[in-house]
Amino acid sequence: MEFRDVVRTRRMVRGYDPDRLVPADLVDRILTHATHAPSAGFSQGWAFLVLETRETLDSFWAATTPPGAASRWLAGMRTAPLIIVPLAHKDAYLDRYAEPDKGWADRDESRWSAPYWYIDTGMASLLMLLTAVDEGLGACFFGIPPQRLAAFREAFGVPDAYAPIGAITFGYRAADRRSASLKRGRRPLDEIVHRGRFHPAA
Amino acid sequence: MEFRDVVRTRRMVRGYDPDRLVPADLVDRILTHATHAPSAGFSQGWAFLVLETRETLDSFWAATTPPGAASRWLAGMRTAPLIIVPLAHKDAYLDRYAEPDKGWADRDESRWSAPYWYIDTGMASLLMLLTAVDEGLGACFFGIPPQRLAAFREAFGVPDAYAPIGAITFGYRAADRRSASLKRGRRPLDEIVHRGRFHPAA
Repeated sequence: MEFRDVVRTRRMVRGYDPDRLVPADLVDRILTHATHAPSAGFSQGWAFLVLETRETLDSFWAATTPPGAASRWLAGMRTAPLIIVPLAHKDAYLDRYAEPDKGWADRDESRWSAPYWYIDTGMASLLMLLTAVDEGLGACFFGIPPQRLAAFREAFGVPDAYAPIGAITFGYRAADRRSASLKRGRRPLDEIVHRGRFHPAA
Repeated sequence: MEFRDVVRTRRMVRGYDPDRLVPADLVDRILTHATHAPSAGFSQGWAFLVLETRETLDSFWAATTPPGAASRWLAGMRTAPLIIVPLAHKDAYLDRYAEPDKGWADRDESRWSAPYWYIDTGMASLLMLLTAVDEGLGACFFGIPPQRLAAFREAFGVPDAYAPIGAITFGYRAADRRSASLKRGRRPLDEIVHRGRFHPAA
């Protein structure tokens, strides 16, 4: 697809055809595109947990679903035949910038003006979401509740040094409901763009 | 361009033709695409400072350049006729999730498993970098050193509630040097992908 069509038609998809698996070559293309995200110092401090068997998918939902979660949302999301969990690895950044060419003599976090381990892993995640659109798939990025992180780590052996920034479901689209949040509307450019100087909202 | 060509050819560009400005309609397209990034709860907690006059560009470099910065890097980057600074607005997220449909009765940050204000603003930034490629421009995303943040805020009136996650130069490409970090090589999939379970490196 044309780049701009991918950007403009992307939206979160919350229901999938459970009987159509995502072909292995597509899964690889999604992951390969993720590795084309930029990263500070080319640190590439990310990892991707890929779940595509019924057993691991069931384990994911069992570990991450809080009691009383919205059942309609969950019923749709559980139809996804593929979940990828993007993990941010802060240590890779602290190590990278302690290398001689970067010249920081320590691993002090106060040297960082923004947490690029989260930002870069987020960029990799967006490339996966966009690739889904390009390949005719649907996808949905969502957060893992903080109170379920320990159960998630336990279920999949994820070390504390790797922080899941969320999870992404993938699959061929079925009918689904758009997020109610979209009623908020997209903020217009003149509200978010500040030309030459920051102009506080009146 | 085809989506996959945009993804696979994108790289940071550190030298520009200083005499070719970025047309206004292209600047608007870059910013419009930024607003197509996903955001938690459709919070859209981002803002974009746009600098495109000689005076504001000079102010940016004066404010953000630490003494002793690499002069070759700076000489190339200063040729850029356009800088956009993506700003993350955490309060917009805390406010959004205190609304009735989200149901959090407070603005407690511990409810967040990842800082989506940074992640989403990073996704918006990637869409701007990709749009540059699609439009035949070059772009470079880089960090503002923490010790220069105060001077940056002062120069452009940016409130403390808005955190710059970096800055992006844009322009028509001139000859430039590739980042030495690229010598590290892209990490192969089998090193970063964990199928079914996290597998620590041997």
